[in-house]
Amino acid sequence: MMAVKALDWDDGALLLFDQRQLPVRTAWVRCTTAGEVAAAIAQLVVRGAPAIGVAAAYGVALSARRDPELASLEVAARGLEAARPTAVNLTWAVQRLLARLRGVPERERAAVALAEARAIQAEDEDACRHMAQYGADLFPDAEVEILTHCNTGALATAGIGTALGVVREIASRGRLGRLWMCEARPVQQGARLTAWEAEREGLPATLICDTAAGAVLSQRPIAAVVLGADRIAADGSAANKIGTYQLAVLAARHGVAFYVVAPTSTIDLDLPDGSSIPIEERDADEVRRVRGVQVAPPEIEVFNPAFDVTPPDLVTAIVTEKGVARPPFAAGLRVLCGRS
Amino acid sequence: MMAVKALDWDDGALLLFDQRQLPVRTAWVRCTTAGEVAAAIAQLVVRGAPAIGVAAAYGVALSARRDPELASLEVAARGLEAARPTAVNLTWAVQRLLARLRGVPERERAAVALAEARAIQAEDEDACRHMAQYGADLFPDAEVEILTHCNTGALATAGIGTALGVVREIASRGRLGRLWMCEARPVQQGARLTAWEAEREGLPATLICDTAAGAVLSQRPIAAVVLGADRIAADGSAANKIGTYQLAVLAARHGVAFYVVAPTSTIDLDLPDGSSIPIEERDADEVRRVRGVQVAPPEIEVFNPAFDVTPPDLVTAIVTEKGVARPPFAAGLRVLCGRS
Repeated sequence: MMAVKALDWDDGALLLFDQRQLPVRTAWVRCTTAGEVAAAIAQLVVRGAPAIGVAAAYGVALSARRDPELASLEVAARGLEAARPTAVNLTWAVQRLLARLRGVPERERAAVALAEARAIQAEDEDACRHMAQYGADLFPDAEVEILTHCNTGALATAGIGTALGVVREIASRGRLGRLWMCEARPVQQGARLTAWEAEREGLPATLICDTAAGAVLSQRPIAAVVLGADRIAADGSAANKIGTYQLAVLAARHGVAFYVVAPTSTIDLDLPDGSSIPIEERDADEVRRVRGVQVAPPEIEVFNPAFDVTPPDLVTAIVTEKGVARPPFAAGLRVLCGRS
Repeated sequence: MMAVKALDWDDGALLLFDQRQLPVRTAWVRCTTAGEVAAAIAQLVVRGAPAIGVAAAYGVALSARRDPELASLEVAARGLEAARPTAVNLTWAVQRLLARLRGVPERERAAVALAEARAIQAEDEDACRHMAQYGADLFPDAEVEILTHCNTGALATAGIGTALGVVREIASRGRLGRLWMCEARPVQQGARLTAWEAEREGLPATLICDTAAGAVLSQRPIAAVVLGADRIAADGSAANKIGTYQLAVLAARHGVAFYVVAPTSTIDLDLPDGSSIPIEERDADEVRRVRGVQVAPPEIEVFNPAFDVTPPDLVTAIVTEKGVARPPFAAGLRVLCGRS
């Protein structure tokens, strides 16, 4: 079976697997400008913190092909960074490209930018493999059931995934009893994307509504809740898909481990705690409609935050490609980020 | 504005407001046999524990018009009781009709059954008014914000509602700051029904996805989570719409009161605790599809319990039409049920 890929560079363009269409059909979107990449990120053609970081890096590379002047690149960079506010990987990737290009003559920038974007993609692929190993090693040598949220798989990264990469590694070790997947309303990345990835690979997996997480934790021997992050503050507070925080509260009530799996590019040591993480609010019609179908009064007022913040007291461990941080997280996260 | 009515008796038939169609259109279903009523209950034309109790009572009355023999009535009763397993109001209403009819000559049974069903409807309307008063009295004399789940309004009862009746009473006292309404996947009774009732009455109300409840409790000064129940065991364990339990866990984390509002007909003193409450599992396509639209792989395995059980240690108070029970609930519930 062909591996799932969220994106790839193809003959002068960035190809994005159009995740809005899943699970009904598979389609690709071809971007040839940074503006097209930014729009695709904003519209959720591509999503997942690591994947949008890689996509944004290619966005800068596309910009450098058109106009390698620094001023132009900075405009393109701002457009890409503004596409979505919460995942820090976006800014991290864009700023890494800009820093790399500043010391390079204009005529070489297109090639260097593309090489750097490719490097970020390859590093993310590697990072996924390492997170999968570190994460799987946290589990006992026995069959386990795991609860996850949203999509953190191949569709969210350039590799096998963050949290879902850990689940894949556990499955490849023959120890996955069952994966319980929350739907993740409003955009249903769990139902549409994770269920699709799980079915494609034949994982033993069950889809639930977000409302049924408490019932599953009450009734099943869940070994851990395992999910990703979009931005992790210096104290270990983790912003992730809306609904993550309540899963953490439930896990604590049931004495179940709560593992956040994310590359170090998701860690933002500049933010002291979760209160300063910007939380994106999205369109009310994501709530009032489901795939175009009205499910609520068309004028009803809506609150639609795309993310919430889980405080560090509810996090058992943070798994990165460089190793595992445990509470209190501040020192461990600095070491993992090479800032000890 | 005309009051919302979930059901009414009309010229030899039971008229049910077809709740499957909301919020897109308003339509009525006319039932002339107990079998039609049972099917309508199973298909969620009418739902809400008190409302399906009243509907089932009229179902027995319809049966008595066709064939007043006790054996026939008992067959009809079993069909009605089997329509949905969790809400005890169904069995309570059906058994109350049967008990009433056993001492009555055959030729009078049709009239007596209809009178008894009408009495149950009127009593439920009264009960809603009393619950609204008792519930509203639990709140301070100040503007409050309330979080609710599923639909517990006029559409769920024969009156103004259980939990939503309390909210209405608070609004009529000029003290409703805001009502936060969880969507209640899979069937979205919050988005489709509560939002519709709230908009119709001009309540200050905001719809959220079930995943955003934790964010709301973190960010807003919520005075209480207020919701209904489908069956309450002798120890105060409350079965209610799936997702209730996790709201209770969240409320406890945030030190927010958690009020269950239900008539005494919802209390089942025969069950010692929550473990013996039968929990209905419904069709997987309720999760895999939303109003006919595919949102997950069509073959993905699904776990779809319609209810969960909140243990009494998470319940602040149970509000009935006869008064308010506080923990430990066992003695208080017996008194409210007249079994002290």
